[in-house]
Amino acid sequence: MSNDAHASGDSPTLRQLGEFGMIDRLMAGRHQPTAVALGPGDDAAMVFARDGRTLVSTDMLVQDCHFRLDWSTPHDVGRKAVAQNAADIEAMGARTIAFVVAFGAPADTATVQVSALADGMWDEAVRIGAGIVGGDLVNCPQWVVSVTALGDLGGRAPVLRSGACPGSVIAVAGELGHSAAGYSLWRNGIQGFDDLRRRHLVPRPPYGQGQAAAEAGAQAMIDVSDGLVGDLRHVAQASGVTLVLSADALAPDREALVTAADAVDADAWSWVLGGGEDHALAAAFAGPVPAGWRVIGRVVDGPARVLVDGKEWPGYAGWQSFGSSAR
Amino acid sequence: MSNDAHASGDSPTLRQLGEFGMIDRLMAGRHQPTAVALGPGDDAAMVFARDGRTLVSTDMLVQDCHFRLDWSTPHDVGRKAVAQNAADIEAMGARTIAFVVAFGAPADTATVQVSALADGMWDEAVRIGAGIVGGDLVNCPQWVVSVTALGDLGGRAPVLRSGACPGSVIAVAGELGHSAAGYSLWRNGIQGFDDLRRRHLVPRPPYGQGQAAAEAGAQAMIDVSDGLVGDLRHVAQASGVTLVLSADALAPDREALVTAADAVDADAWSWVLGGGEDHALAAAFAGPVPAGWRVIGRVVDGPARVLVDGKEWPGYAGWQSFGSSAR
Repeated sequence: MSNDAHASGDSPTLRQLGEFGMIDRLMAGRHQPTAVALGPGDDAAMVFARDGRTLVSTDMLVQDCHFRLDWSTPHDVGRKAVAQNAADIEAMGARTIAFVVAFGAPADTATVQVSALADGMWDEAVRIGAGIVGGDLVNCPQWVVSVTALGDLGGRAPVLRSGACPGSVIAVAGELGHSAAGYSLWRNGIQGFDDLRRRHLVPRPPYGQGQAAAEAGAQAMIDVSDGLVGDLRHVAQASGVTLVLSADALAPDREALVTAADAVDADAWSWVLGGGEDHALAAAFAGPVPAGWRVIGRVVDGPARVLVDGKEWPGYAGWQSFGSSAR
Repeated sequence: MSNDAHASGDSPTLRQLGEFGMIDRLMAGRHQPTAVALGPGDDAAMVFARDGRTLVSTDMLVQDCHFRLDWSTPHDVGRKAVAQNAADIEAMGARTIAFVVAFGAPADTATVQVSALADGMWDEAVRIGAGIVGGDLVNCPQWVVSVTALGDLGGRAPVLRSGACPGSVIAVAGELGHSAAGYSLWRNGIQGFDDLRRRHLVPRPPYGQGQAAAEAGAQAMIDVSDGLVGDLRHVAQASGVTLVLSADALAPDREALVTAADAVDADAWSWVLGGGEDHALAAAFAGPVPAGWRVIGRVVDGPARVLVDGKEWPGYAGWQSFGSSAR
């Protein structure tokens, strides 16, 4: 598989195969989970969320802003697009049941590339136990992938950002700073560190831990997509509390990245505290934390803010679109 | 309101206001309908579809492919994006309850333009009785608007494309060919015909007629988005029947467009039979058709095809992305 978006070889292009021909090819041989009552092929799809409540979240990925086709294969892009949407549903304490996907690409895109993107989406969806139930395929000057995820709470209450209470602990499941480390390695052209460079292309959200946290009574939860401190600030604001992180508790996260940080002359703390796109989960628990979670701080009375060892962290505070901040 | 996407005047740009600042501004003062249990502001939104089934459909609009900012205001683009997604839910016989929206635009886009787009989306959503419950805002070289609509069947069965039976009639609700006529007028720089030119920018789907058709026992239904003959071909294929349209029955639809057709030296039949983007509804009924619907043909035994007065219609067969067909 070439990384050139417009590689053709013997593959027809989207212009040659046409929208409907491509869609037929993308739908062939896919197996929908039982939560999907009606898959692609009609005006709309239909999914079951039997308690009568459906969660929904959407994210858009734009070529050369959110991914580069000289770093990622189309399969990687598909996995990442699905994973980051599923992480939002996890962060509510729910199970992702289905995705719809809108994809824009130039007419001269090779159809093998589009098939690879769809295969990546399906590979990630199958890991989650979800189906891809519909979509749209349009002409666009560059690749744009827009995914919407639907989730089922299974009768539980959603875990919001607003329930964190003083006296509780803050815990995380999943990786912190690995995607940011990988980005920095790619950006600086450093070879080796295959796991980290890979992690930037395809995140590894802790699937199932959102539900596990909800069942363990998590008070508040968030998907760490923009950076730990930046995202926890949303929890602090929604809950009206101060969150105090412990550098000692986070030291193992930093330790895992320190060799890579040396290779690019970076500070591993900036990746752990400020790196986005890992799609770890962070939550507040009054009681013991479930297996797979590690305590990294506590909730205290005070103004809405996030402290590290009692002090404001002066580093990069989280990714924003249109921002001029360096990553 | 200027039609220039990057008009600034005194408005800050997206770069200046930032993603989160813009999102705060877009969310302020909006009122969600009762079907929305949890609106924007957390990792995901939550909607009620109390019978445990949720419909979902998605469409992507790309600047200069699906809309032009020298023809449409951002408000128009917002209305169109919402309307065409709602039409897909209508075509299942359901009520649209909520939308999520992903929007990509250049960092130098004036925030007043983004606000106008969102206002247009909300104006159309309010007409439908739905809410906009979440979204994403990202950097992109041109405007890309990706909307996902969620629908509630209210306990009814979905109306698929596959149920049309010989002996039934084919009926439509809504306009046929008005958007295509408007496109041709815009394209040829013809002034006047304000209603038709307007209809190309903002379609007028027959909201509520999808539910009315389902309640009246519609056997099969489709949203006319790509052209009447082309879309009915999907019904013919899914149902395994021949659909025979009557030129006499469609003559009033043609008549409404004939002056405009003369102005651009076009054939009004090509607009009525082949024009897309009106988002009329077409359905098969065994019994009488509900108010607001007009009979245009009948379902007969035979191979899966669409005939006009017993003959194949040789004209343009429907819009496809990446196609080289003239519109």
